[in-house]
Amino acid sequence: MNMLVDGEWRTDASESNSDDGSFQRQETTFRDRVRDDPDAEFQPEVGRYHLYVSYACPWAHRTLITRALKGLEDAVSVSVVDPYRDEDGWQFTPEKEGCTRDHVHGADYLRELYVRADPDATCRVTVPVLWDTERDTIVNNESKEIMRMLDTEFDSIATNDVDLYPEGYREEVDRIIDEIYEPINNGVYRAGFATEQEPYDKAVDDLFAALDRWDDVLGEQRYLAGDRLTEADIAMFTTLVRFDTVYHTHFMCNVQYVREYENLWPYLRDLYQTPGFSETVRMDHIKEHYYTTHPDVNPNRLVARGPDLDFEAPHGRDELPGEAPLSAASAGADD
Amino acid sequence: MNMLVDGEWRTDASESNSDDGSFQRQETTFRDRVRDDPDAEFQPEVGRYHLYVSYACPWAHRTLITRALKGLEDAVSVSVVDPYRDEDGWQFTPEKEGCTRDHVHGADYLRELYVRADPDATCRVTVPVLWDTERDTIVNNESKEIMRMLDTEFDSIATNDVDLYPEGYREEVDRIIDEIYEPINNGVYRAGFATEQEPYDKAVDDLFAALDRWDDVLGEQRYLAGDRLTEADIAMFTTLVRFDTVYHTHFMCNVQYVREYENLWPYLRDLYQTPGFSETVRMDHIKEHYYTTHPDVNPNRLVARGPDLDFEAPHGRDELPGEAPLSAASAGADD
Repeated sequence: MNMLVDGEWRTDASESNSDDGSFQRQETTFRDRVRDDPDAEFQPEVGRYHLYVSYACPWAHRTLITRALKGLEDAVSVSVVDPYRDEDGWQFTPEKEGCTRDHVHGADYLRELYVRADPDATCRVTVPVLWDTERDTIVNNESKEIMRMLDTEFDSIATNDVDLYPEGYREEVDRIIDEIYEPINNGVYRAGFATEQEPYDKAVDDLFAALDRWDDVLGEQRYLAGDRLTEADIAMFTTLVRFDTVYHTHFMCNVQYVREYENLWPYLRDLYQTPGFSETVRMDHIKEHYYTTHPDVNPNRLVARGPDLDFEAPHGRDELPGEAPLSAASAGADD
Repeated sequence: MNMLVDGEWRTDASESNSDDGSFQRQETTFRDRVRDDPDAEFQPEVGRYHLYVSYACPWAHRTLITRALKGLEDAVSVSVVDPYRDEDGWQFTPEKEGCTRDHVHGADYLRELYVRADPDATCRVTVPVLWDTERDTIVNNESKEIMRMLDTEFDSIATNDVDLYPEGYREEVDRIIDEIYEPINNGVYRAGFATEQEPYDKAVDDLFAALDRWDDVLGEQRYLAGDRLTEADIAMFTTLVRFDTVYHTHFMCNVQYVREYENLWPYLRDLYQTPGFSETVRMDHIKEHYYTTHPDVNPNRLVARGPDLDFEAPHGRDELPGEAPLSAASAGADD
């Protein structure tokens, strides 16, 4: 967490903990919207918007996948921060493999963009950030909302005909995204950043109860909302793909591996093999970030070896009703 | 580790690390022997010897299993220390579940026994300790040697006719005990207490290469040395039984669970279900010890939930050549 505290930017790996030792995630603060509407302040335009992301961050990862699935790579450019985050927060280190400079402003630290957008900003400096180069400000830094915007408001400039929030599924997609947030997406953090036994135990119980439940659901249907791949699957994917490698050991979510689940593991491979997903996964950034950035959890900053996961193994899930949104041939997803 | 340093007992969770960040285990120092020989200084006698153990410690665990398999419960008494070890070292806390007072001297700390045995002792204060109540001193504090003594020198007073170091197998048993020590028994500590990436990686590589190799061997034979359960199996058991619950996550030995191995997992269950083994396993002490005693590794001292392991599930290994040394009816193993 980065906060402007007494004039200094402070980074706290555990963001914040209540008196009872439970992890409390703070709200994001920039909540404007791009809308496909001639009267809107922020309208979709090729080259106007820029994404600031970390490959390590599951929230930023949602926006990278949506951008790839929609074919918005040429329309929305991306800057990638260093996976290692020290007390100065997310940083641009273009010399490092997989990282880039700040393509818009050439900043050294992401916090500089927050101050540029709002000189009085005292909020957390987080990724993803959707930046408007025209008005030179942050549109939004809430991953769920950026994912939704890229999905539903950029169709006029998207190169793939993909709808991840389809009519007839919308209520269910919203419900699932909300339902998996607390026990799963945020649950791994609640487990990993707990400083007392009771909130840790509660987080782990909630997490695996939810995973067990979705494993059952995915025995009957290919995707979370049924036979269509939706934003809900993207939200689930970015947690699952990190699970066995980092959350399991680093955050002590160690009741079982995702790869031990009967349906979640083939489901994860199915998504990974869907064009647009694997191109956004950088396991080197993921491992470096988690294991080295939280000395409160992992004092020696050793990167755990972790299991070898074969994301490319056949998943067999195309026998279930539903089909992937893009064939390999039609997809292009590169940064 | 406890050392008498500048007149003070010092405990260091990581025992000691070289300049390169690798873990170095120190030698034990009391190396006398009980021998079944009328001329020996230490001869086997009912009630003469006492074992100091921790249920948490894999080295002490070897001696508890040997004692149970041989039927020496009435001949060799036991005191059990608190699984939590602070800077004062192993402690007697009889009020705590599963712990006992020091039955011999009523000491508060194990270090008192070391000083009683040798007023100039500056060595590590470790379990197991084999104490001679007649000469009021430590006979030996090296687990491999105590295991061997209980196995081969106490037959005159043992109530079970069990030989864990049988003629024709001895060379192989010695070879295996030595071979598994560095990569497996001590390997988990080398991984967990490494403070630099390179020695950690090396330890993890060595560990899983050795586990893979033994998994193959155990596809062909029931026990490590062939068709007979021997001391080598005891030495392997005390590491494997702790593996998924503590070493995997706490020591970041997370390439895979033992329960994911095709043969090691049934082998572990086979041993667990052999009378004399399960009675010596206290998973509550094991979990408390590791997760709370090493703040250098686990600063918040949270006890990880860990996988649910069904040690009682059928193992099917009685179809391999060889048979367990004791039937359930003939065995008695209680503390």
